[in-house]
Amino acid sequence: MNLTDGLFSDSELADVMGPRAQLSAMLTVEAALARVQARIGIIPDAAATRIADTARSLAPEPFDLLAATAKAGIAAQALVGALKKACGDSGQWAHFGATSQDIQDTGLVLQLRDALLILEARLERLQATLGSKARDFAETAIPARTRFQMAAPTTLGAKIAVWRAPLQRDQERLQQLRPRLFNVSLYGAAGTGAALNPDMAGIRAALAADLGLGAPVVPWHAARDAIAELGGWLSLLTGTLGKIGVDLILLSQSEISEVSAGSGGGSSTMPQKSNPVMAEALVTLARLNAGAVGTLHQAMVHAQERDGSALALEWQVLPDMIIRTGAALRLAQDLADSLTARTDRIGASFTADKGAMLAEAAGFYLSRQMPREDALAIVSKALKMLNEGTYATLADALTELEPGHNWPQILAPQNNLGDAPGQAKY
Amino acid sequence: MNLTDGLFSDSELADVMGPRAQLSAMLTVEAALARVQARIGIIPDAAATRIADTARSLAPEPFDLLAATAKAGIAAQALVGALKKACGDSGQWAHFGATSQDIQDTGLVLQLRDALLILEARLERLQATLGSKARDFAETAIPARTRFQMAAPTTLGAKIAVWRAPLQRDQERLQQLRPRLFNVSLYGAAGTGAALNPDMAGIRAALAADLGLGAPVVPWHAARDAIAELGGWLSLLTGTLGKIGVDLILLSQSEISEVSAGSGGGSSTMPQKSNPVMAEALVTLARLNAGAVGTLHQAMVHAQERDGSALALEWQVLPDMIIRTGAALRLAQDLADSLTARTDRIGASFTADKGAMLAEAAGFYLSRQMPREDALAIVSKALKMLNEGTYATLADALTELEPGHNWPQILAPQNNLGDAPGQAKY
Amino acid sequence: MNLTDGLFSDSELADVMGPRAQLSAMLTVEAALARVQARIGIIPDAAATRIADTARSLAPEPFDLLAATAKAGIAAQALVGALKKACGDSGQWAHFGATSQDIQDTGLVLQLRDALLILEARLERLQATLGSKARDFAETAIPARTRFQMAAPTTLGAKIAVWRAPLQRDQERLQQLRPRLFNVSLYGAAGTGAALNPDMAGIRAALAADLGLGAPVVPWHAARDAIAELGGWLSLLTGTLGKIGVDLILLSQSEISEVSAGSGGGSSTMPQKSNPVMAEALVTLARLNAGAVGTLHQAMVHAQERDGSALALEWQVLPDMIIRTGAALRLAQDLADSLTARTDRIGASFTADKGAMLAEAAGFYLSRQMPREDALAIVSKALKMLNEGTYATLADALTELEPGHNWPQILAPQNNLGDAPGQAKY
Amino acid sequence: MNLTDGLFSDSELADVMGPRAQLSAMLTVEAALARVQARIGIIPDAAATRIADTARSLAPEPFDLLAATAKAGIAAQALVGALKKACGDSGQWAHFGATSQDIQDTGLVLQLRDALLILEARLERLQATLGSKARDFAETAIPARTRFQMAAPTTLGAKIAVWRAPLQRDQERLQQLRPRLFNVSLYGAAGTGAALNPDMAGIRAALAADLGLGAPVVPWHAARDAIAELGGWLSLLTGTLGKIGVDLILLSQSEISEVSAGSGGGSSTMPQKSNPVMAEALVTLARLNAGAVGTLHQAMVHAQERDGSALALEWQVLPDMIIRTGAALRLAQDLADSLTARTDRIGASFTADKGAMLAEAAGFYLSRQMPREDALAIVSKALKMLNEGTYATLADALTELEPGHNWPQILAPQNNLGDAPGQAKY
Repeated sequence: MNLTDGLFSDSELADVMGPRAQLSAMLTVEAALARVQARIGIIPDAAATRIADTARSLAPEPFDLLAATAKAGIAAQALVGALKKACGDSGQWAHFGATSQDIQDTGLVLQLRDALLILEARLERLQATLGSKARDFAETAIPARTRFQMAAPTTLGAKIAVWRAPLQRDQERLQQLRPRLFNVSLYGAAGTGAALNPDMAGIRAALAADLGLGAPVVPWHAARDAIAELGGWLSLLTGTLGKIGVDLILLSQSEISEVSAGSGGGSSTMPQKSNPVMAEALVTLARLNAGAVGTLHQAMVHAQERDGSALALEWQVLPDMIIRTGAALRLAQDLADSLTARTDRIGASFTADKGAMLAEAAGFYLSRQMPREDALAIVSKALKMLNEGTYATLADALTELEPGHNWPQILAPQNNLGDAPGQAKY
Repeated sequence: MNLTDGLFSDSELADVMGPRAQLSAMLTVEAALARVQARIGIIPDAAATRIADTARSLAPEPFDLLAATAKAGIAAQALVGALKKACGDSGQWAHFGATSQDIQDTGLVLQLRDALLILEARLERLQATLGSKARDFAETAIPARTRFQMAAPTTLGAKIAVWRAPLQRDQERLQQLRPRLFNVSLYGAAGTGAALNPDMAGIRAALAADLGLGAPVVPWHAARDAIAELGGWLSLLTGTLGKIGVDLILLSQSEISEVSAGSGGGSSTMPQKSNPVMAEALVTLARLNAGAVGTLHQAMVHAQERDGSALALEWQVLPDMIIRTGAALRLAQDLADSLTARTDRIGASFTADKGAMLAEAAGFYLSRQMPREDALAIVSKALKMLNEGTYATLADALTELEPGHNWPQILAPQNNLGDAPGQAKY
Repeated sequence: MNLTDGLFSDSELADVMGPRAQLSAMLTVEAALARVQARIGIIPDAAATRIADTARSLAPEPFDLLAATAKAGIAAQALVGALKKACGDSGQWAHFGATSQDIQDTGLVLQLRDALLILEARLERLQATLGSKARDFAETAIPARTRFQMAAPTTLGAKIAVWRAPLQRDQERLQQLRPRLFNVSLYGAAGTGAALNPDMAGIRAALAADLGLGAPVVPWHAARDAIAELGGWLSLLTGTLGKIGVDLILLSQSEISEVSAGSGGGSSTMPQKSNPVMAEALVTLARLNAGAVGTLHQAMVHAQERDGSALALEWQVLPDMIIRTGAALRLAQDLADSLTARTDRIGASFTADKGAMLAEAAGFYLSRQMPREDALAIVSKALKMLNEGTYATLADALTELEPGHNWPQILAPQNNLGDAPGQAKY
Repeated sequence: MNLTDGLFSDSELADVMGPRAQLSAMLTVEAALARVQARIGIIPDAAATRIADTARSLAPEPFDLLAATAKAGIAAQALVGALKKACGDSGQWAHFGATSQDIQDTGLVLQLRDALLILEARLERLQATLGSKARDFAETAIPARTRFQMAAPTTLGAKIAVWRAPLQRDQERLQQLRPRLFNVSLYGAAGTGAALNPDMAGIRAALAADLGLGAPVVPWHAARDAIAELGGWLSLLTGTLGKIGVDLILLSQSEISEVSAGSGGGSSTMPQKSNPVMAEALVTLARLNAGAVGTLHQAMVHAQERDGSALALEWQVLPDMIIRTGAALRLAQDLADSLTARTDRIGASFTADKGAMLAEAAGFYLSRQMPREDALAIVSKALKMLNEGTYATLADALTELEPGHNWPQILAPQNNLGDAPGQAKY
């Protein structure tokens, strides 16, 4: 436990990826394997029944397996030992023809399937909420800022659409990666299935059908691309949420405060403060997962038919990435749910800008009526006058230089939103 | 230039991702934009012709744009300045309604499209070669090694199949990511297309059609998931090639030498040596890209409507990742082309093992004829006798303990390959 | 908890860096602060006594602080709330003039001081053990391998000396970084100490003296180099231990087995195996910390006077790095304690090499007696004869080409150890 | 070349770390080695003279060595081949008893020595400039911002002091790491110096004296901690500069603009903009080096007596880290030189805050005159009144609640700077 788990962890996903769920998933695999093997006559029916029953009821204390796991270098092996023992005479037929990594990896896939269902549901909900918020604020003018400078008007809805679009792509990516990830592993010691030859392929297919997974012909004991790909997906997702975080941080600066989202954290000594704690956490989670994906990809350099160093690297990195992604989705949902525009502060921002951000718009407007060079020269001059403080707004300066146009209306942010409302409603 | 570019760089991809190709790609975009805008009457025909002609012939020295790029913080802006100047009066219609990042990003996509065609062709060729090699060595018995220990027999073809399978998945992944990546960017200063409202969407679609790209409604100026996803794909690919590298390094150790691939590097002082230089380079390239993907994902925390820090992070990381991937594919191809089995050395490995790696096989064989516990006890005893040096091979020990079986034949590696040949031919 | 904690975690360091120790450390800081402030008359004596007593006895359940920490975004603030409440009327004088980060950071330094004492003791013990082992095996000839090829003879002691030397440098580095890290933080809300002006510097110095820490004038709220430097030190240390790990993995391959260290892990299905589980774990821990140091350095881009995103990145990364370093030292100690040479296997390696690794030695020997070019030509020819299988050893071939020398003795590994014994005893 | 080299590269350091300098450094080592060996009678005087003369005049085209380097996997070997050839008959005495890595590593150290001199000078200059600027603005009140919210007043000088303090620590760190890094490598093929036994230690010491380096007894061929440590130092330095970058970015936002530094980049379409291009580049460089240090530390897992994969990882990562550090120091210097306070904008910030950031100060002021709880209650009430818009400033609200104090003066930022001026002048 960590004192900051309320921000950076997620109890639901911590459970799904935790040691009890891991043991349970591996026992599920062993039970299914025994049933399948009995069905095709490889092991005695009675043994399979005993193994499946025992696997169902066995709930070993994770703590009790620490020493055996440390000795074996793989949890599945410690668990198999406990299972065999608990099955009495039938134990000899448990784990029959399988290797520890088969069980470890298939169990992991079952955990990941559960975890991804949760993440997918949160992702779906978040993007729906953002879609709704984008429509709500489709017409709400707000300054766009590029390279940390006032740029031109956009709408809050369009900003939210930019947050949402990659989430929709992440949903698509998830569908595409699932078949590459959701596979059984059952290849035996050296990956050849020799112990149960020529039945291994059939057993694998039956086990896969039983568990609702795929059954590739070529073993993935040492080809870890699907795991690394999943890490990439998790980091893409938290990266997008981190972008929401940094935007909310910047929008909630004291000087800006154009948007409100989440309840701010107070200060231990400064009573006036409201800190963007949840938005900051999104950035932290994004950077953690970005770092982690780099470490996880190091595990692809996997030696020979099984590489304990590389496997353990996955075990140490991937569960935390999933938990962090869950935490980020939860925080983002809270922020999205409570997101509102502070129109008074947005108005103040436009006022403070004095219309300078409409300079490009003015240039394009004039270009439709005179040579573009002349148009740009006039706008330049108006900006100069504005900067010198001679005029209160760009509209005033342009009225002086180019009378006969309704400049306040031409340069009103609301009249210069381009396709922002359309993007927001997309 | 770096003295090791012969290993870690790739001239073809360095060209495609280099400054001249970058400038050329951006000029292609500006030319297409002008033509499209003239076609729908937004800018004068003559101006478009002049812009397109100039863009085609302009080949600025990259060196000459360094200072302007450094000042602007984005190369497109420096280039647009040069283009406008070279177009004379028509220059005012160049880059009309676009922002620098539109051109920079669309140009990048054009470069990436070229680069990915090259990588895809190399990938296709490599996986085909590996497929052919896997079939050639489908039946060639060789020890599998798990956790750096002799495990059980497999075949060289099955090993190669494990290298190849993720490459086939990478081909699939590439098809899936392309539509998310191959998009035009044309959204104007604040992403709203306001300058050319309401024509921007139409211009964007026409430009996209002209360039053979997609045209998303929502801007990706600040939503960088497709770039980060590409980085992940590159690292998945080099990771798989790094696994080939580490396997070849380990297989070519003096003590093993069961496989020969590539021409070894000599030593400056040890005349007997043959170093696995190319295989080592594959590992290096995998680790470099794994590190780089972590850095690239940091760039997803992209502030507001444009974040110069985050964008530049992509510019500094992505091209090298692509070049490294090209280098890795080239090296892997050379290794694959020249890969051969050294059957004398493989035979020596089996001999040195004395059949110990067939212990599991012996247990399964005996289990079919007696209670499994008894079978395992006999094998344990035989292994003990083998370790004590009483018998030369496991078969000898088992012949003593369980006469009446043709143990040498039962335990011959060739008779214990399981599905390895089938995997190899898959 | 994780099922692999027996390998990758360390209970002693997990305690020191855990939530109870963290709360305790922060309470120690608050107590000391109150006492110091009472001593110089800033807060009432009775209040200080009450605060110090309460802090000593308060042992909040970490779980109870999760929600408040999540809300505040910093654990210190949640704890201060609980402390103030528990102090009754005196609570108003707790945390007087401090900011949450002052307490959080000073508490962290106290935890780190404890952790580094443990790590230092383990490091000292490990390097002493390795020193002793290096001396034990100072003369034990063993093949050196460069780029995974037999190179020339060295001694096991010299190999161990290469493992040990960086550990000695790490001891030196630790002494050097301590003064930069072991500092109190007490600068108040904005880092200026304004709330207690002009007493803050004096209070800080007194608090630092009380806690045995330094008291820099310039706040380190937002200057995080000492934290990042510590991360680098931890990763240097685990990197060196990872090098021991990879060497032991390679030395314990079935085909080599020249060194034995640690008890090997068995296989769930292959009874003959002994896996280098602990050595593999050293590599995993090294790669984890290498990845983590990259992430930790991202936290140096710390915005303004306090950046919640960057701070939390440290909180999430640093404790695990310390725990991993403790785990790696523990595993390395176990390996070092049990390390022995298997001289039969070493002898077999030299035999299998047939003396080829002495080719350089032969060249230098002959060079003392004839033109160097002639010498090298003879050695080349002898190697060729050896490779063609005409002669059993390089000595035999040279005896044929250059009779009159006692080639077997000249090329005996034991006679070609150079300074390896001296390095081992250094 | 890259179009953004003006920001992210540095021509001076690119030269020092480039291929010509690398070749030159290695030739320097070979020349010194030959001279030393002649001096103690190991090789003929005439040969040494010829080798030294040739090494001095030889300036091979890097391009010409690409193929040989790729084949050998190490540039030194390709160079040695060229050197030997160019020396005619004397060539046989070049590189005598050395191994390629000896030359490669010693040459690298010579390059690093040059590079670190340049970096040190820039670092010294930068910290001096920042020291001077800190003194200039020691009393210039400016808002401190914590967690992106107005916190309390500080001074610009105190902000600059926070930037400078870690740079001073980096100077100290550099002095401490130099002796660990500035060492000769001369250990021969297997690290034992056997070829020249028992003279190798003497030759190494003489070579080291000649080159002004240290000469450790234990080889560092495979113990790469000093290289990894250097990478950490570079990233600490760019991390601190990245913090300057993010602060300047945030301070130069349109809405804040309290500080001006560097010349801003314009926009291709928004005439009013001034982008913080150089400050953004500092952040990019920090993130690049943070990622790179993680990759470099992966290279510490260095197998056996020489690991080509791990060595090449260093070669690919370290030079860019140095060049980036040089670029960052250069950019930071430009920013520091031109840094000025915009007191009008700072005043506007204080005005906009309405004194809310002085709430803590008000609480402490009142606490000296009444029970602290009462004081805090009054301030809370005043803040509430301020937020409700009833009063224009916190001073007004407090005047209403607690008349008889000169609240405007008590809460003037200038009167609440604490030790900020002292920190600035430290």
